[in-house]
Amino acid sequence: MLELANRGRGLYAFTSEVARWIDSSGIADGLLTLFVQHTSASLLIQENYDPDVQGDLERFFSRLVKDGDPLFAHSLEGPDDMPAHVRAALTQVHLSIPVHQGAMTLGSWQGIYLYEHRHQPQRRRVAMHLIGE
Amino acid sequence: MLELANRGRGLYAFTSEVARWIDSSGIADGLLTLFVQHTSASLLIQENYDPDVQGDLERFFSRLVKDGDPLFAHSLEGPDDMPAHVRAALTQVHLSIPVHQGAMTLGSWQGIYLYEHRHQPQRRRVAMHLIGE
Amino acid sequence: MLELANRGRGLYAFTSEVARWIDSSGIADGLLTLFVQHTSASLLIQENYDPDVQGDLERFFSRLVKDGDPLFAHSLEGPDDMPAHVRAALTQVHLSIPVHQGAMTLGSWQGIYLYEHRHQPQRRRVAMHLIGE
Repeated sequence: MLELANRGRGLYAFTSEVARWIDSSGIADGLLTLFVQHTSASLLIQENYDPDVQGDLERFFSRLVKDGDPLFAHSLEGPDDMPAHVRAALTQVHLSIPVHQGAMTLGSWQGIYLYEHRHQPQRRRVAMHLIGE
Repeated sequence: MLELANRGRGLYAFTSEVARWIDSSGIADGLLTLFVQHTSASLLIQENYDPDVQGDLERFFSRLVKDGDPLFAHSLEGPDDMPAHVRAALTQVHLSIPVHQGAMTLGSWQGIYLYEHRHQPQRRRVAMHLIGE
Repeated sequence: MLELANRGRGLYAFTSEVARWIDSSGIADGLLTLFVQHTSASLLIQENYDPDVQGDLERFFSRLVKDGDPLFAHSLEGPDDMPAHVRAALTQVHLSIPVHQGAMTLGSWQGIYLYEHRHQPQRRRVAMHLIGE
C-alpha cells in the first residue's frame, strides 16, 4: 500500500515510488496493478516531459466538468465533490502495467500520475499488486 | 461468468455478487479482473454511499453525449445506441482489483457498478477472472 | 511486443494479431494485458460490426476535444498534440481481458482497437502480457 499526500487538485507523478516497490518485491517478470481506493481521485499514464501537458489536462477537465454545476444534486461536501466523481469516472481508478526484467514496460515519455480532483490537500491510498516470478 | 439483468439506463451495484464469487473460488490473494462482454454497457468503481452520485453521473453523461445527436450516422438500433458506445469508450469495459486475505482492496466508499447505457432493460454478461493462490 | 503502423487519426482493429500471439504462447487459461507505450494513442474495445461506429466515435471526440483549442499551452508539436493527450486520458492505455480455453472472452461484437489520435501516420508499440497456464 502506498500513501500519497498531495496539495490538492492536479497531477502528481509517482513513477519512481512504484519502481522502487517493484525492485523490493524480488519479482522480475509479471503484471503490476495499481488501484486507488478513492472515488474522487484517479490514476493516469501521461506525458512526463513537458509540464504544460499536466496544466492543459487540468484546464480541459475543469472546463468539461464545472465545479458547482447546478446539474449536480450531490453537493453537501462542496462544489468540487461531484465533479471529482465525474472526473474519476472519465479517467480510471486502476492501471495495469506489464513488468519485464525488473522494469515496467513504460514508453520513454510515460509517467504514472495520481490525479487529485478535490481542491483541498488529501492523503490517498494506492493498492499495489504484482504477480509473476 | 456473471449474468446481470437490469431495468435500463443507469448504474447497478454488484459488489456483493463479486465478493461471493471470490469467496467460492478459494483464492485469498491475487488479482481480480472483471470484463463486460458488451459495447453499450461499462464497468465503474464509484461512491456507494449517496445515491445522488449515481443520478448526477447519469445526468452528466446524458448531457455530454446526447441521445439522437445528428452527429451520429449509426442510428439504426435507436437514438441511444451510438451514445451508448461513446459512453462505454469514455468509461471502461474492464476493472482490475487486487484481492488480499480473501477481500477486494476496495476503499470504504467504493462499490462496483455495471453502467447500463441503453434505455431498454438488458441482460449483460461479465466475465470474472481471479489469479493467485 | 507488437508494432502497429497506422495511417493517422482513427481506429485500427488488431484483434486477430492478439489472438495469434495468444495461440503461439501455449497458455490456454489466464489474463491478457495490453499496454500501449504512448501518450497520444489509446486502446479501446468497441463494436466491430458497423464501421459507422468508428466514424461516429471519431466525430464525437473531434468535437469534444478541439484541435488547436486556445485553452492549450502545449502546442509546439502541432494543434493535434495536446488534444491527443486529452483523448488518451479520456479513454485508456491498457486493456485486461481474461483468456479461457485459448480464446479471449470477448463478446460477439467486441473488437480490440488501437485509437490513433495524431493526424500523421505513426508506428505504435503495444506491450502484450499473458499470465496463466
